[in-house]
Amino acid sequence: MSQASAGGVPSLEVREAILGRRSIRRFLDRPLREEDTLALLEAGRWAPSGLNNQPWRVILVEDRSKAAEIAECTRYSSIVEKAPLLIAVFLDHSSSYDRDKDVMSVGAFIQNILLAAHDRGLGAVWLGEILREKDRVRELLEAPPEFELMAVVAVGHPAEEPARRERKALDDLIYRRY
Amino acid sequence: MSQASAGGVPSLEVREAILGRRSIRRFLDRPLREEDTLALLEAGRWAPSGLNNQPWRVILVEDRSKAAEIAECTRYSSIVEKAPLLIAVFLDHSSSYDRDKDVMSVGAFIQNILLAAHDRGLGAVWLGEILREKDRVRELLEAPPEFELMAVVAVGHPAEEPARRERKALDDLIYRRY
Repeated sequence: MSQASAGGVPSLEVREAILGRRSIRRFLDRPLREEDTLALLEAGRWAPSGLNNQPWRVILVEDRSKAAEIAECTRYSSIVEKAPLLIAVFLDHSSSYDRDKDVMSVGAFIQNILLAAHDRGLGAVWLGEILREKDRVRELLEAPPEFELMAVVAVGHPAEEPARRERKALDDLIYRRY
Repeated sequence: MSQASAGGVPSLEVREAILGRRSIRRFLDRPLREEDTLALLEAGRWAPSGLNNQPWRVILVEDRSKAAEIAECTRYSSIVEKAPLLIAVFLDHSSSYDRDKDVMSVGAFIQNILLAAHDRGLGAVWLGEILREKDRVRELLEAPPEFELMAVVAVGHPAEEPARRERKALDDLIYRRY
């Protein structure tokens, strides 16, 4: 279903990308191309936010020794150690206006990144358990106190093809209709 | 850039959809097809969530008198009154395990819906200001107390082509690199 886009790089269809995306936790030992890294953030950048406040900020980690330090903050250390790119996603409280709305927009930002990764043939996983150590991660990454860690997205070239995880039926999701 | 997909319905490329999506606030006076409504929720359904808990629930409003009641809960009443479909998005506290992670996953759910709407030639806008009256909306929609309103997404056939809103430069979004 992919085809050459204007830039010459094939792109998936939206539907296929949304339904076909999986969490990828094992990566090849191969660095990301700079253009891929920037394309993920470019996708994130166009997420919607309340009053267009864009409260998200990222710190990128490709350095192996820094990744190893971050890996000590989570139970999923093997993913973090081996991912060629970590995107630490923060809510910048100096740009925040409503916590729920801002946190939701960070979720939209991350989803765009995950879709863009899948679209480019990369794999990614959204890590949340690391938030137990969010202050320590912030310090290791030398982020200012107004940055609150929301997630770490680990990205790389996929070394696995996991099965699709189940979802609730549409009927369980739609509570009522008027 | 669109092409016929397996189902015969053209679909946009991911990149094009993410970058080309706009908030649409004016709609044609034309109802949504049931298959479009369900396709939006199908896209939402595949959003990621922590522990795959899928804490989102929706109530759909197409009935005009119910839409008029909801419209009284927001400053943006003309959008709500005229949208052929309202998707009231709730966080179900009985499925929740961590508020921040759940609220982020609701953001990912909404983003999938917005992308799917754009992909199908529909327009949508994510309404947040209505959360000031979230309890009243919940009561009007006869949702249980464990449902907390997170957003109302108004959907329809676009009657406007708004310009792209600006975004921060990538350099302002990337705080640091290791």
